[in-house]
Amino acid sequence: MTAAAELERVLHEEIPLSRAMGIHVAGYDGSKLRLAAPLAPNTNHKSTAFGGSLYSLAVLCGWGLLHLKLREAGLRKHIVIQESSIRYLLPVDGEMMAECRPDETAFARFLSTLKKHGRSRLALNVVIMQNGRPAVEFSGRYVVHG
Amino acid sequence: MTAAAELERVLHEEIPLSRAMGIHVAGYDGSKLRLAAPLAPNTNHKSTAFGGSLYSLAVLCGWGLLHLKLREAGLRKHIVIQESSIRYLLPVDGEMMAECRPDETAFARFLSTLKKHGRSRLALNVVIMQNGRPAVEFSGRYVVHG
Repeated sequence: MTAAAELERVLHEEIPLSRAMGIHVAGYDGSKLRLAAPLAPNTNHKSTAFGGSLYSLAVLCGWGLLHLKLREAGLRKHIVIQESSIRYLLPVDGEMMAECRPDETAFARFLSTLKKHGRSRLALNVVIMQNGRPAVEFSGRYVVHG
Repeated sequence: MTAAAELERVLHEEIPLSRAMGIHVAGYDGSKLRLAAPLAPNTNHKSTAFGGSLYSLAVLCGWGLLHLKLREAGLRKHIVIQESSIRYLLPVDGEMMAECRPDETAFARFLSTLKKHGRSRLALNVVIMQNGRPAVEFSGRYVVHG
């Protein structure tokens, strides 16, 4: 099973809402994770994507990226979202596609602290694009501990 | 149909994820709205409430409060979330219960601007309690327009 397929299985098994939302892994190249979900189960009163669905996709994109990177580092840890902020710039009226690519220097520092102290924090940005323009900007602070 | 029952119908019909989450109106007294959801469809990998579900409940609590207050004022408007932030203070391991009570002065100012200009913004705080302590603090900026 590929890392992407394994992540999708974990999301669907452990977070039932991700299944209700139809979330799937759209791509992972070792540094960037893309999570997608169809519009239909995630619409709002204006037939565009519900803000809570966009948030959920974004927070899971950051969580999933950390899950994959920690596995690659041979670490099994708990990943918890501590706080976050989100800006809705444009309505999303098609498939939702979130993308997370951590800053390499910040990630290396995060991993070093985690190995040394068993606990570390990382801020991750996630963007959801619509027709080539950022529609949603999410920033989350995740805590990882043993 | 009471205002609370009407809001629940609107949420379930227009935002299918609110139905998947099992969201229901727990109370509305004219100034404070409480929205609740059971844990089961909203769990995460740690068997506590998923951060995306907590966010969705909170953002809909603010949206629902505005929906009810605008109806009372005889206004039919679009309510859109523009940006928000959320802090997770404690894990929630039972029913999720969100509460929103707008500041009366800020709400009066918001309504006055809306009537004058057909468009207005309001910041709303929502809290999710767990055993009498705040577990989640949400703050959202909503835009209302014609």
